[in-house]
Amino acid sequence: MTALENLSKLLSRLPGVGPKSASRIAFSLINTSKDYNELLAKSIAEIKDRIRPCSICGSFSETEICPVCSDAMRDRTQLCIVEQPQDVITIQASGAYNGLFHVLGGAINPLNGVGPENLSFDKLIQRINEGSFKEIIIATNPTEEGDTTALYIRHILKDREGLSLTRLASGLPIGGDLEYADRTTLTRSFRGRIQF
Amino acid sequence: MTALENLSKLLSRLPGVGPKSASRIAFSLINTSKDYNELLAKSIAEIKDRIRPCSICGSFSETEICPVCSDAMRDRTQLCIVEQPQDVITIQASGAYNGLFHVLGGAINPLNGVGPENLSFDKLIQRINEGSFKEIIIATNPTEEGDTTALYIRHILKDREGLSLTRLASGLPIGGDLEYADRTTLTRSFRGRIQF
Repeated sequence: MTALENLSKLLSRLPGVGPKSASRIAFSLINTSKDYNELLAKSIAEIKDRIRPCSICGSFSETEICPVCSDAMRDRTQLCIVEQPQDVITIQASGAYNGLFHVLGGAINPLNGVGPENLSFDKLIQRINEGSFKEIIIATNPTEEGDTTALYIRHILKDREGLSLTRLASGLPIGGDLEYADRTTLTRSFRGRIQF
Repeated sequence: MTALENLSKLLSRLPGVGPKSASRIAFSLINTSKDYNELLAKSIAEIKDRIRPCSICGSFSETEICPVCSDAMRDRTQLCIVEQPQDVITIQASGAYNGLFHVLGGAINPLNGVGPENLSFDKLIQRINEGSFKEIIIATNPTEEGDTTALYIRHILKDREGLSLTRLASGLPIGGDLEYADRTTLTRSFRGRIQF
């Protein structure tokens, strides 16, 4: 195997990179600057050592406690529960939310052997007991697993006084087109229709 | 900038990788094995040192003379002229051709300041003078620049006796659909229609 084939093969294991784009990227790396290639290589080699889970919320962090958890300006009465660390970054990038996060580390999926005991529910309960949360926003994915996980969260938290439970709205994506909406999304946007 | 943002930014400079896929790839590299990340990093850092242009045909090679040029089993009466080293690999992968190659290093493009003098035409003439070619297959891209380059090649080679000049057929891609064919492709496939 030549160096180019070897590089293409390694690249094709990245998400969203098929054999054709892998070889296109490999070719491009012959023409990019040596400095860029070395920076990229260093960044890839080091990323796993640089990033760890935040010891409070479980999202990606370069420090023991992540910038969100240690930010005194965040609203400490709101807790947004997500499946993955990536979700924190997506929500943060939207600027739509200013409270705290809790990363479950996945969703309940009995078929894949993922039960509540495999997710960070113990820590969630502990945080809610020790914190001053007034609202828990469930932001699991609008999928079967995400729905199951949302129901489970409701089940374990529903009897707490003074704690409001909400879930992110599902419906037509903004800028989308009715014509291309799938049936489930359309059904959900009918069920969740609001006064206008 | 965090390590993740930095990695995403570097990745987003690769061809076909937008900001969203860059961050998806960056996230995935937190979950891949350390061995894989190190192999990938090493491969990226070294690729420019491993690959050089073949001193005969100009395609990518890890040796002074590339495997195609040094392969005694190839047909040395056929020479296929392509724009880029990538084209050699694409044609090689197809298995459709068993002759030699010549890489021009681009196509004639006056608007971008690329004239014949910027491409490896001197070397092409020298190879044809010294070689035993009977057919020159022009495999420049079916674009305006590729067409111009093909015409130029015809201009400089047309008076050579015993040298046949051909160009790759243009037309509907196999497996394609008439409905989605653009007008130029359709026009070309009408002009190039064959007895059936």
